[in-house]
Amino acid sequence: MRCLYIRKDSMKDTYALVIHGGAGTITRKSMSSEKEAAYRTALNTALTAGEQLLKKGAKAIDAAEAAVRVMEDSDLFNAGKGAVFTHDGTHEMDASVMDGNGRRAGAVAGITSVKNPVCLARAVMEQSEHVFLIGKGAEEYARTLDLEHAAPEYFSTEFRKAQLMRIRDTGRTQLDHTEEDHKKYGTVGAVALDTSGNLAAATSTGGITNKRFGRVGDTAVIGSGTYAENGVCAVSSTGWGEYYLRAVAAYDIAALMKYGGRSLDEACAEVLNGHIAEMGGDGGFIAVDSLGCIAMPFNTEGMYRGYAKSTGEREIAVYRK
Amino acid sequence: MRCLYIRKDSMKDTYALVIHGGAGTITRKSMSSEKEAAYRTALNTALTAGEQLLKKGAKAIDAAEAAVRVMEDSDLFNAGKGAVFTHDGTHEMDASVMDGNGRRAGAVAGITSVKNPVCLARAVMEQSEHVFLIGKGAEEYARTLDLEHAAPEYFSTEFRKAQLMRIRDTGRTQLDHTEEDHKKYGTVGAVALDTSGNLAAATSTGGITNKRFGRVGDTAVIGSGTYAENGVCAVSSTGWGEYYLRAVAAYDIAALMKYGGRSLDEACAEVLNGHIAEMGGDGGFIAVDSLGCIAMPFNTEGMYRGYAKSTGEREIAVYRK
Repeated sequence: MRCLYIRKDSMKDTYALVIHGGAGTITRKSMSSEKEAAYRTALNTALTAGEQLLKKGAKAIDAAEAAVRVMEDSDLFNAGKGAVFTHDGTHEMDASVMDGNGRRAGAVAGITSVKNPVCLARAVMEQSEHVFLIGKGAEEYARTLDLEHAAPEYFSTEFRKAQLMRIRDTGRTQLDHTEEDHKKYGTVGAVALDTSGNLAAATSTGGITNKRFGRVGDTAVIGSGTYAENGVCAVSSTGWGEYYLRAVAAYDIAALMKYGGRSLDEACAEVLNGHIAEMGGDGGFIAVDSLGCIAMPFNTEGMYRGYAKSTGEREIAVYRK
Repeated sequence: MRCLYIRKDSMKDTYALVIHGGAGTITRKSMSSEKEAAYRTALNTALTAGEQLLKKGAKAIDAAEAAVRVMEDSDLFNAGKGAVFTHDGTHEMDASVMDGNGRRAGAVAGITSVKNPVCLARAVMEQSEHVFLIGKGAEEYARTLDLEHAAPEYFSTEFRKAQLMRIRDTGRTQLDHTEEDHKKYGTVGAVALDTSGNLAAATSTGGITNKRFGRVGDTAVIGSGTYAENGVCAVSSTGWGEYYLRAVAAYDIAALMKYGGRSLDEACAEVLNGHIAEMGGDGGFIAVDSLGCIAMPFNTEGMYRGYAKSTGEREIAVYRK
């Protein structure tokens, strides 16, 4: 189905929200029922936080930020609390947001002490004259704002520490591994369409376990990890960041719709299973278009995901169907 | 003229190289003839460095890197030696490269001690498993390589110091200003097509005078400041970085060609005078497509620029015609 551009008055109560908590080797075999239940609960809480705002007529950017914030605050996901450890035993977090209304954007990378990196990214978008701030300078900017800070221990969990210990001595700079050392792309994200027709996207990550050298993936990069444009779509990526950067993945979906006439589904599939897969990458996307059509494609074994629509449709899912 | 996709055997000796040294308020009135001559000489040297490689059958990425390196080594341009000062009186440089052959890419931001940031970006592309490294971590990576380092004083010039002094107390975080305090986008870049049909792009900058908070513009961002894809085009941006980031400017040109059937000229004009101008931004691009067609559009008063082709055509220009 083609879902593009035209928004009718009959859509004035239409909203949609899609979230993800990362894609990767997430299989029934590798997951206890308790753990799966915990993930489902957390995803549900994030979805509700965003949906309640949309129901009240709040802006898409508010809903996307709220949903991501809940996942940052959960230690289950690799973002905010529960972020993976760097090689040096620290946390370096990246986040970005984009408001499709005016294509405004904010992004931060290498954040160590801000409780919710997604809120810092939003502040960069709305309160600074810039789009992208990194490292110590971004931290310095955060201290000029009324934002919650947190000590390094806040972000740390025993599970993530054990992950680092297992792989640090291998010398590999690796992705966020599951307990079985299979690959998993630890990112959280949300995309939303609000009742005024605005689109927005937000993405946040702790990066990859044992990372060195100030590595930044696609999550901090507008066009790769996050993109939103009213009348087209909003996209949040989760996957092997280096491939998403080279593919300019999130904007590629929008470009295929704008210039190539693809539907949201077609565009997502073409970028994920075409462009990214051909380069050797994998992962997933969540996306919503201006009519409220949604897509949650992934080519890994699972992706923590969920959506809620003004039609009452709602779903939380983890595995491939 | 449509210049797309099809490469014929008759093109086996075809190459093209385009360079820029930044766009902005560059007018005859504001420029002494000595200074103009110095710029023309530096651009000519950069063009020759890249063209000699292309003539010998070297790769596009070698030519683009070589041309940018010459401009980084010249204190006339805001990149490498001659980089502008941050608010704290330091230099924080960004650079990125992309090889259209395989869409491989490397990018660095917040670099303080590497003589040629473009060479570090290339090393990230070719020698690391990553695409994007920032800040101290990127510096740490650079120390593992056989790359030339330089002390802070190497990058500093009296001219740039005076620029900082003039605006630091205003509290404004500003673009690289000319002596008349008009805006000027200090970036250098090169795009190349080699005789094997490969496209490549490279971009480097010292950022904006008096910048704070680890601000990064489009230069370090694949898809915004730099993009290359064999069979399509190679692009290097120079302009108001925040707008180029939000527009995903460099990749937008490629997407318009790939999905929208535009020629290189049409795509550049649409992004610069359409998307970016509509948001309130300005600047320029240099670009080359897979047939050797080139474009050097800008909507500022001037842009330091030049090109050389296998046909013998060659030009250095500064002002609007």
